[in-house]
Amino acid sequence: MPVVLTNIKRADQDAADALAQYGTATVHEAQGRTGLMHQRLRPVWRGAAISGTAVTCTLPPGDNWMIHVAVEQCRPGDILVAATIAEAHSGYFGDLLATSLMARGVRGLILDAGCRDVDDLEKMGFPVWSRSICAHGTVKETLGDVNVPVSCGDTVVNPGDVIVADNDGVVVVPRLDAPEVVKASQARIEKEEKSRARYKAGELGLDVNNMRSRLAEKGLTYMDQSEWEKR
Amino acid sequence: MPVVLTNIKRADQDAADALAQYGTATVHEAQGRTGLMHQRLRPVWRGAAISGTAVTCTLPPGDNWMIHVAVEQCRPGDILVAATIAEAHSGYFGDLLATSLMARGVRGLILDAGCRDVDDLEKMGFPVWSRSICAHGTVKETLGDVNVPVSCGDTVVNPGDVIVADNDGVVVVPRLDAPEVVKASQARIEKEEKSRARYKAGELGLDVNNMRSRLAEKGLTYMDQSEWEKR
Amino acid sequence: MPVVLTNIKRADQDAADALAQYGTATVHEAQGRTGLMHQRLRPVWRGAAISGTAVTCTLPPGDNWMIHVAVEQCRPGDILVAATIAEAHSGYFGDLLATSLMARGVRGLILDAGCRDVDDLEKMGFPVWSRSICAHGTVKETLGDVNVPVSCGDTVVNPGDVIVADNDGVVVVPRLDAPEVVKASQARIEKEEKSRARYKAGELGLDVNNMRSRLAEKGLTYMDQSEWEKR
Amino acid sequence: MPVVLTNIKRADQDAADALAQYGTATVHEAQGRTGLMHQRLRPVWRGAAISGTAVTCTLPPGDNWMIHVAVEQCRPGDILVAATIAEAHSGYFGDLLATSLMARGVRGLILDAGCRDVDDLEKMGFPVWSRSICAHGTVKETLGDVNVPVSCGDTVVNPGDVIVADNDGVVVVPRLDAPEVVKASQARIEKEEKSRARYKAGELGLDVNNMRSRLAEKGLTYMDQSEWEKR
Amino acid sequence: MPVVLTNIKRADQDAADALAQYGTATVHEAQGRTGLMHQRLRPVWRGAAISGTAVTCTLPPGDNWMIHVAVEQCRPGDILVAATIAEAHSGYFGDLLATSLMARGVRGLILDAGCRDVDDLEKMGFPVWSRSICAHGTVKETLGDVNVPVSCGDTVVNPGDVIVADNDGVVVVPRLDAPEVVKASQARIEKEEKSRARYKAGELGLDVNNMRSRLAEKGLTYMDQSEWEKR
Amino acid sequence: MPVVLTNIKRADQDAADALAQYGTATVHEAQGRTGLMHQRLRPVWRGAAISGTAVTCTLPPGDNWMIHVAVEQCRPGDILVAATIAEAHSGYFGDLLATSLMARGVRGLILDAGCRDVDDLEKMGFPVWSRSICAHGTVKETLGDVNVPVSCGDTVVNPGDVIVADNDGVVVVPRLDAPEVVKASQARIEKEEKSRARYKAGELGLDVNNMRSRLAEKGLTYMDQSEWEKR
Repeated sequence: MPVVLTNIKRADQDAADALAQYGTATVHEAQGRTGLMHQRLRPVWRGAAISGTAVTCTLPPGDNWMIHVAVEQCRPGDILVAATIAEAHSGYFGDLLATSLMARGVRGLILDAGCRDVDDLEKMGFPVWSRSICAHGTVKETLGDVNVPVSCGDTVVNPGDVIVADNDGVVVVPRLDAPEVVKASQARIEKEEKSRARYKAGELGLDVNNMRSRLAEKGLTYMDQSEWEKR
Repeated sequence: MPVVLTNIKRADQDAADALAQYGTATVHEAQGRTGLMHQRLRPVWRGAAISGTAVTCTLPPGDNWMIHVAVEQCRPGDILVAATIAEAHSGYFGDLLATSLMARGVRGLILDAGCRDVDDLEKMGFPVWSRSICAHGTVKETLGDVNVPVSCGDTVVNPGDVIVADNDGVVVVPRLDAPEVVKASQARIEKEEKSRARYKAGELGLDVNNMRSRLAEKGLTYMDQSEWEKR
Repeated sequence: MPVVLTNIKRADQDAADALAQYGTATVHEAQGRTGLMHQRLRPVWRGAAISGTAVTCTLPPGDNWMIHVAVEQCRPGDILVAATIAEAHSGYFGDLLATSLMARGVRGLILDAGCRDVDDLEKMGFPVWSRSICAHGTVKETLGDVNVPVSCGDTVVNPGDVIVADNDGVVVVPRLDAPEVVKASQARIEKEEKSRARYKAGELGLDVNNMRSRLAEKGLTYMDQSEWEKR
Repeated sequence: MPVVLTNIKRADQDAADALAQYGTATVHEAQGRTGLMHQRLRPVWRGAAISGTAVTCTLPPGDNWMIHVAVEQCRPGDILVAATIAEAHSGYFGDLLATSLMARGVRGLILDAGCRDVDDLEKMGFPVWSRSICAHGTVKETLGDVNVPVSCGDTVVNPGDVIVADNDGVVVVPRLDAPEVVKASQARIEKEEKSRARYKAGELGLDVNNMRSRLAEKGLTYMDQSEWEKR
Repeated sequence: MPVVLTNIKRADQDAADALAQYGTATVHEAQGRTGLMHQRLRPVWRGAAISGTAVTCTLPPGDNWMIHVAVEQCRPGDILVAATIAEAHSGYFGDLLATSLMARGVRGLILDAGCRDVDDLEKMGFPVWSRSICAHGTVKETLGDVNVPVSCGDTVVNPGDVIVADNDGVVVVPRLDAPEVVKASQARIEKEEKSRARYKAGELGLDVNNMRSRLAEKGLTYMDQSEWEKR
Repeated sequence: MPVVLTNIKRADQDAADALAQYGTATVHEAQGRTGLMHQRLRPVWRGAAISGTAVTCTLPPGDNWMIHVAVEQCRPGDILVAATIAEAHSGYFGDLLATSLMARGVRGLILDAGCRDVDDLEKMGFPVWSRSICAHGTVKETLGDVNVPVSCGDTVVNPGDVIVADNDGVVVVPRLDAPEVVKASQARIEKEEKSRARYKAGELGLDVNNMRSRLAEKGLTYMDQSEWEKR
């Protein structure tokens, strides 16, 4: 039975807003290297870096009707996550739906299918991460669900989770974990800042991270190339 | 028997020229969602939007000889459509052939294989849509055909058809349909302009398109998330 | 037995430096259409064109430890070539390791796996050619080799070989062949310059390359389209 | 925080057992064309058709440790569902783990990664559906989760759901829906039996399904080929 | 305007029947290495080898309605060729439609999309070559065409052409060429039979095909490995 | 300069013969999880398990000439390894060349491209592992190399190395390591035999491999599902 869930619980808004600044690489590391979507999801134009709360929907092959239904469930600060129930590359989304989402304050779209009107989307400043760029049009005949847990980019997304997306990809932060992940991301950034200074000064990762003894234990052998060639 | 067809019939030139402005998404919708090539055909540099009449050729694996033959059959306003007879990713085309095509007034190339010299092509302003970017060179040993119907990007292209290509992909308009597709595209643009204004003002697709009753008939159910979790 | 080879022999530095200017298409043609890596290796940001001497390493799935080990073997003018021993798309490399490589004068990275922090890499001006863009983090648990012959991008790379990389892809020049390939590349460029002028003036490849008689011998037939349709 | 959930609720055992006989095509239709995994999941040997209750786990790249942990949570009648958190093709599973799962009465494995020892698995009669067949070995260094909701084959699987798998693919039936889906599957089979008899007797789908008038309404036109060629 | 062409011209029936025995490799060579479909089209069960005359149709994404329409246009000895107008992997075809096609004497199906019920198809002995095996169901909402030229497997198929399909793939023989291709196939088989005897007796292809002098002309050099290693 | 190396050094014949019995999974583990080719290399018919010494060659796109040249360099007990220098799927190999290789006592072919005549190959009992099955024919125009180090299946193969291939894939054992890898494979088989008995008796991998304490150290938490749901 196709269903639209209303009044969903959303992640803490401050946390959802804060995560964009850390980027997907840092955020997914900060939560234990989990939640990253498959690399097939790429920005249709480069440069945007956003975070926000997820409204989810499922899409039948070649049918974008449920995006229209999902738009109504979106609030300012949301990011729409549109998953397919079978591999599809049609152009489910273009500038008209982007106009509608922007009018509602939605920050972007994650679409595990095809997207079109990519030039218009760039001009409008509406960011989309999609599986493909394809102009093939869709129909409006078959129902799906809105705001149920979905599988998008090989990752489970629950409505209200936080989505973080940039040029490196898309990561999902579980709704209740968001504030903690902000803290862990901040800590990670600070730690990396220190490492970066040492790397810049010419120190090696082998020393910054004390790797030499463990490498030796595991059996790594150093040998002059000329010796090796005599074997 | 490999053949080069000469003096091909071409689509109406005004229609062929006019279609670029509408873009591939609109044009392919205007002709009933047909004629769009597979999304594997991508611009080697972003930003060009062209239309023109097709000169076609077929390419054996790793052999670009027939492109040289096809160049001679091109006239100003044409777009060359180079199809392969087996999957291939070699770099069939580069800046020298682009120089030659530009000298003949050709507007671009659709190549269901690999392309190279992509920086030079961008500097020259010669647009190419290709399956891959690959520098691997080709030989000149085996014949193919010029100006026969070809399968390019999973779509039939007849010589003289109109090709429209932009950042969303590539669409083929059958030769005799071009004037009618111009009209239908114009109509579609005007209709979309009205919808866009309504979306911008915050109206929903559900209302702009009168979708609510049909969704209800099909059985779409709205439910508060808290209820759903109690199931 | 995992091994790090030290004091590797490197290609002639002048030749290694000179090859960047010719680009991958010319260089791989100049050495007989060999040495080009698979087109899956793409620049994570567009615009860089480099050449340098290869330091190689192998990477276990999801484990980037050996990149840290390899950094120490790099000298100014080197390019790191990181091959995987099983298909992997994790983000093996980001801005911290790039900082470290830049501090050592390394010119770029060829990575047959995933790369992350692509915005930072572009800002830093550190070029990477990779199989995918993926933020998924890696561990440091399993050893590999440094400076042994590796298979990267479906091509054998020996340590000390010259790597040339640009927007068209990546090519490997065997260590001892580099000076000769510089000469052959220069010759090819000069020959192409002459052809380019003729193409620009409107001459056809069919005539510039004397192809007509050989096409006729092979049986290419020209026929008016109207005749062909009567068959 | 990596977690193993114990004492999971499982679908009704009779329903879980009954679904195998209907097959994936029928079952996924019976629940509204939902729940089918991506077609990349293929049987490593052909011929098995199973159903059972899901125990789930997540797998880091190149690391199969959590399969060992998950085995302990399995009961007779279960099917193990092993999802990856990043695309991976290593051989996470072979005959030893199959021996262990068979000893616990597990009916099969759904593995969104690589599988090895496929001949042994066929001889043992232990069925596996996997993304690839690959012998590359894995390590045991990094934790994941057991019995949390996972994304496997682009589909959400909750522990205790029913899995149905055969040569057509893999489908997930939500835990509480299983008995109802059995009924709907049975009804569908009976209806299809009647249609099959009519098709066998030479009746057309156009008539069995009363499609002619709707096709005409939508504008389908019949025309003699000779007329069409005169256009 | 979606159209169904009736009373199509078909290739000579004797030629269409005869081609199966030669197999796809021989037939496509016999017509100058043309007409072979892309290797993504694979038999859903192994062992069938058929030939027959093509009835064609186009399929919208996730919609198999036009297969029902096309069935009515099939006669004994035909093979149905179902092309998609956008990449799709849903299960467009299963045992019910196979029952209907068998009742009309159709010999098989070429489907550039997904197929299901593959076990039933094998039991029934109805051969299908498809792009994928996928149980995902389809709808019946959108029109396409029947018996127009289509692009299937990256190859143009005209209605009435001959299709030859076996474990090596699928080849299309243009309608009017079929009798000539039978002759050329027979000649090729006879020539290969002679070569086979010589190969079996230990003669080398280098000698059977007089390749040695041409290899030397092209510059092939033989060198003892021990010399080469001293370079 | 294209070269054919003659009189290559080959691995110890007894070791080369012995490795087949252990299979690719065991052999590649025994040499430290290295040398496995990419999983895209699959048997064109299932059931063969072979090992032997490698003769190597490189193949230009769509050109199988060098296979003819390589045949002459083969001796009884060899396996031919044919690598491409650019991605290609043409059918480089069929029953005639198989007849020739069998006449020379060659045990099989590893082909990083397309293969045809797969039914004949199965009937003849000549095993091939290939990237694709494709009937598209090849030309004989361009030279490559024989018995130089090649990159096949993302792995370096030196002439004289041992190749082991079965239904799990293909592994390369460096020439000089073969006897040692036989011993390590035998030891691994014996160790696995013991583990297998324990698994069969119902012991868990967690206990057979003493994993529990290390899992706890890493922080794995067990929790009743009902508790988890209350979070």
